[in-house]
Amino acid sequence: MADNNNQRRTFDIQFDVAARATGKMRTEAVVRLTQTGEEWEMVSDEGGFHGGDGAAPLPLAYFAMGTTSCLMTQFRAFAKRLNLTITDVEMASSFRWEAHQIGSAPYEGVPIGIDIDVSVQSKESESDLVNLLVKAQKGCFVEQIILKGFPIGHRLQINRGNWIVM
Amino acid sequence: MADNNNQRRTFDIQFDVAARATGKMRTEAVVRLTQTGEEWEMVSDEGGFHGGDGAAPLPLAYFAMGTTSCLMTQFRAFAKRLNLTITDVEMASSFRWEAHQIGSAPYEGVPIGIDIDVSVQSKESESDLVNLLVKAQKGCFVEQIILKGFPIGHRLQINRGNWIVM
Repeated sequence: MADNNNQRRTFDIQFDVAARATGKMRTEAVVRLTQTGEEWEMVSDEGGFHGGDGAAPLPLAYFAMGTTSCLMTQFRAFAKRLNLTITDVEMASSFRWEAHQIGSAPYEGVPIGIDIDVSVQSKESESDLVNLLVKAQKGCFVEQIILKGFPIGHRLQINRGNWIVM
Repeated sequence: MADNNNQRRTFDIQFDVAARATGKMRTEAVVRLTQTGEEWEMVSDEGGFHGGDGAAPLPLAYFAMGTTSCLMTQFRAFAKRLNLTITDVEMASSFRWEAHQIGSAPYEGVPIGIDIDVSVQSKESESDLVNLLVKAQKGCFVEQIILKGFPIGHRLQINRGNWIVM
């Protein structure tokens, strides 16, 4: 019989978001993990400078939190899988963009830099801990999307008519 | 004098995250918009299948919410800038990955598909609304990172020692 420890397997992860515009610049959404049926209600808003009420975190705050906590989770989960003992994991991350605008026309967003500093307490070897961070990056679903670039499919429906594929 | 309406300008946006590992698989973070000093406390957790307590949204839920609400915000904001009247904006988005695993080794995450369906009520022309969605994509800071691919800098600090650049 094959050794189960070397068995290749693939599993799927899918998150669906059902979002609607409310208030001035508020987005109210239900985010669902399809594999388990777990759902979370999440709300974003914009600050006054972008026409909102500042009553909930900004969309980019959700993105920054998602990216950072994704790496954090895999760093801890994979330490267990690799039998490495770590404590006091802290991450300091920075996400920077420039917006390019002409007059009051819609502006374009240009990513400038993303950096994540990881600090950890451990008696394991440096090479083991470096390898752990490399593995965590490969296992971080958000980082893999960001690093590789990825097309996003868009469809537009006007007045409940036919879907326009963009 | 130059017409202010055609003036080119650039502005910066930076989000910083200070995150620490707590509980079994919990991440507690302060997310800060540096330009305004606004801060949000955000918490993620994992479900039982990944060793967590399921007491907060998963990291990928934050990512999915951030991406969707980013596009939602720009779709609404740019409608105003383009003098287009829209109501009842709804978005249904789907984020899909495969994880590839051998035995119990750390797995790798592979993005499979991202789709965002946008539904809107409006008396504006189809071409104006399609153009609005195109502009919103270009102005969505998250979509621009995802579409273009982008390197993420990582540094590792062990036991408060020197930073290792990875």
